[in-house]
Amino acid sequence: MIQVEIITIGDELLIGQVIDTNAAWMAVELNKIGLDVRYKTTIGDQEKDILNAFETAFSRVSIVLVTGGIGPTKDDITKKTLCKYFNTPLVFDEKTLQTVEEVVKGLNRKLNDLTRFQAYVPANALIIQNKMGTAPITWFEKEGKILVSMPGVPYEMKWAMSHEIIPRLQTAFPETDSIQHQTYWIKDYSESLLAMHLESFENELPPSIRLAYLPTSGLIRLRLTGKNQNKELLNKEMEEQKEKLTALLSSYIVSDEEDDLEITLDKLLKKNEWTLSLAESCTGGKLASLFTAIPGCSHYFKGGAVTYSNEAKTALLGVNSSDIENQGAVSQTVVEQMALGAQRIFQTDCSIALSGIAGPDGGTPEKPVGTVWIAAAYKDKLISREFHFSQNRENNILRACNSGMTMLLSLLPA
Amino acid sequence: MIQVEIITIGDELLIGQVIDTNAAWMAVELNKIGLDVRYKTTIGDQEKDILNAFETAFSRVSIVLVTGGIGPTKDDITKKTLCKYFNTPLVFDEKTLQTVEEVVKGLNRKLNDLTRFQAYVPANALIIQNKMGTAPITWFEKEGKILVSMPGVPYEMKWAMSHEIIPRLQTAFPETDSIQHQTYWIKDYSESLLAMHLESFENELPPSIRLAYLPTSGLIRLRLTGKNQNKELLNKEMEEQKEKLTALLSSYIVSDEEDDLEITLDKLLKKNEWTLSLAESCTGGKLASLFTAIPGCSHYFKGGAVTYSNEAKTALLGVNSSDIENQGAVSQTVVEQMALGAQRIFQTDCSIALSGIAGPDGGTPEKPVGTVWIAAAYKDKLISREFHFSQNRENNILRACNSGMTMLLSLLPA
Repeated sequence: MIQVEIITIGDELLIGQVIDTNAAWMAVELNKIGLDVRYKTTIGDQEKDILNAFETAFSRVSIVLVTGGIGPTKDDITKKTLCKYFNTPLVFDEKTLQTVEEVVKGLNRKLNDLTRFQAYVPANALIIQNKMGTAPITWFEKEGKILVSMPGVPYEMKWAMSHEIIPRLQTAFPETDSIQHQTYWIKDYSESLLAMHLESFENELPPSIRLAYLPTSGLIRLRLTGKNQNKELLNKEMEEQKEKLTALLSSYIVSDEEDDLEITLDKLLKKNEWTLSLAESCTGGKLASLFTAIPGCSHYFKGGAVTYSNEAKTALLGVNSSDIENQGAVSQTVVEQMALGAQRIFQTDCSIALSGIAGPDGGTPEKPVGTVWIAAAYKDKLISREFHFSQNRENNILRACNSGMTMLLSLLPA
Repeated sequence: MIQVEIITIGDELLIGQVIDTNAAWMAVELNKIGLDVRYKTTIGDQEKDILNAFETAFSRVSIVLVTGGIGPTKDDITKKTLCKYFNTPLVFDEKTLQTVEEVVKGLNRKLNDLTRFQAYVPANALIIQNKMGTAPITWFEKEGKILVSMPGVPYEMKWAMSHEIIPRLQTAFPETDSIQHQTYWIKDYSESLLAMHLESFENELPPSIRLAYLPTSGLIRLRLTGKNQNKELLNKEMEEQKEKLTALLSSYIVSDEEDDLEITLDKLLKKNEWTLSLAESCTGGKLASLFTAIPGCSHYFKGGAVTYSNEAKTALLGVNSSDIENQGAVSQTVVEQMALGAQRIFQTDCSIALSGIAGPDGGTPEKPVGTVWIAAAYKDKLISREFHFSQNRENNILRACNSGMTMLLSLLPA
């Protein structure tokens, strides 16, 4: 199994100004071509730390992927430090300058001294042109091992990985081990109860297969991971275990896709040409933002009403104001009216409505923080359910989103 | 300066199933008490890797904070590995059992064998009771250095840090160096042009102060960081540099708060008792979700319309359908009608409306992907502006949100 270390460089990551979303994306893509991320290291823009990180990484893995620290400004020292580590000078590269000029032009800007300096590159590196930004990608080889430095800006990194780095890594390290993941999203189970339910299944797993539990906003993502050089044997073993697990969990399985639930729904809605609308109170637009992050969602997503105030529930969705007064905004009748209202106003096949007390304030003895009513509608079918989540606002919002999607998935015809 | 390393344990982080949001939050909190996060290491649930990471961390920092790998299931081996590293047995702890029982009861569940096992703790550790989950927090000391193991579930980790770990670290390591950060959010500048504009300012900075550039979805976060043992001197130096920088950037400064723009707006709206509504097309609920993530936003946020389809723009916000037909949904008149419609329907002082082509599809030669019209309204004032962002959907959504908030901030009376 070829091992990879990801090194992320930037003071902004160490003082918490930025959350590193790159590494997770990279790991998924590397896994697909049979490469195994074993370590992730984050350091600041300091030469000594960067040099040490390179040294350690080369001592333990075959592929080192470095992101960040190659912008045009002074605080970025990765390029300089790479030259020091690989003992090579910076040289001017005409082809890189052309690329930088094109990128700058595409942004309706002019080349300046700092962006021009991006065309100076380490002499002994393979230079890969970056079509998304001004910092070139540099590829070094040393004793059969590889280090690639790329931008930290997420969409530049993603472009560089997909178009340039992954294909080259695939050529350099043809797949040896097979890796297979199978995920199941499980509802209505706590982590420990699920583990007890699966105890003997887990004990009888063959050595090439591992089981992992990942609680995720009210659901548990159960992951079977198999690794084996013998692909056929692995396939056979995985199939056997998947069959056993599916039988053990049956109706508790919300989805057997690796994808997040919104992606699973996105595929299903597109395939069946069903349309969707949302009526959100406590989730405040979060559920809509999950769907609209997906390219092409406009094929089925017509819109949503974020009705935070009671007046908005009535004005936009036609919820009966006396029902709000008598039953409260967090109630079965209100959330059902919200779901039907969204279906009607946006003229959609499906809708999800959510109303609850996200907290930390707004709870009462009868309806404490974490109480959420959710309804899902598909054509003339309507279901609703009361949940009691947690004391934590963020957690309540995410659990409500997941539960709403779980309910709609259960309602849609197979 | 006392240095900290954060070690995050979990296979789910290395295969990219989960994005690590904990480390950023921890870094911010540690910075506040003068502790400096220098390294962040992520490893999987494998004994050898965990032991190596402990060894390396102890060789280079004074405080090691470990998250993850202490759930009740088999794949979690951190507790066992801690015992091995610190050469100590697991012993039953009555007090921990009581805490676990209370937590489980609060979730309307019953104690089972796996959760009961959480009451077995390393003999030579200080045990800190976890009121948010079943895994106890363990605190080890070794040669004047500290290692703390805590849950990886974000809200459990946050509770543990805020209530237990930070106060104890403050006692163990009274502040020595002072750290000061000052952030400025800068609009309408590219990173390299800004760096050139600030070149002589940057060259003349005293050695205790550094400047960093962080491009963030269409804006640049400029950060002055000062570190010095002499707090008074540092204050004086920082004040001087802040004054210089403010004079150099004047009207390009959107905000001088460390906070993200939605938090800055949240504070301003609450303080002035202004209300807000949103009309989102291309941002699809993202902007609403940023505001509604903030506790207490219901004081000013009345709601939003996520009008993805043209019909929804007319039905919910009263946008003239012939204007949509003639000018297109991405046009000045439509976005202005959306802003006024939101103000009217939700009866708010302020509104922001956004309509654009997020991509990757939907672009035309006249209105390519990345074209976004944004309007902001405050009482009877209305402004609107056309933007050309990028080819990237995620980036376009985030830049639109930031630009909308920037516009509203510029419109509100000082």
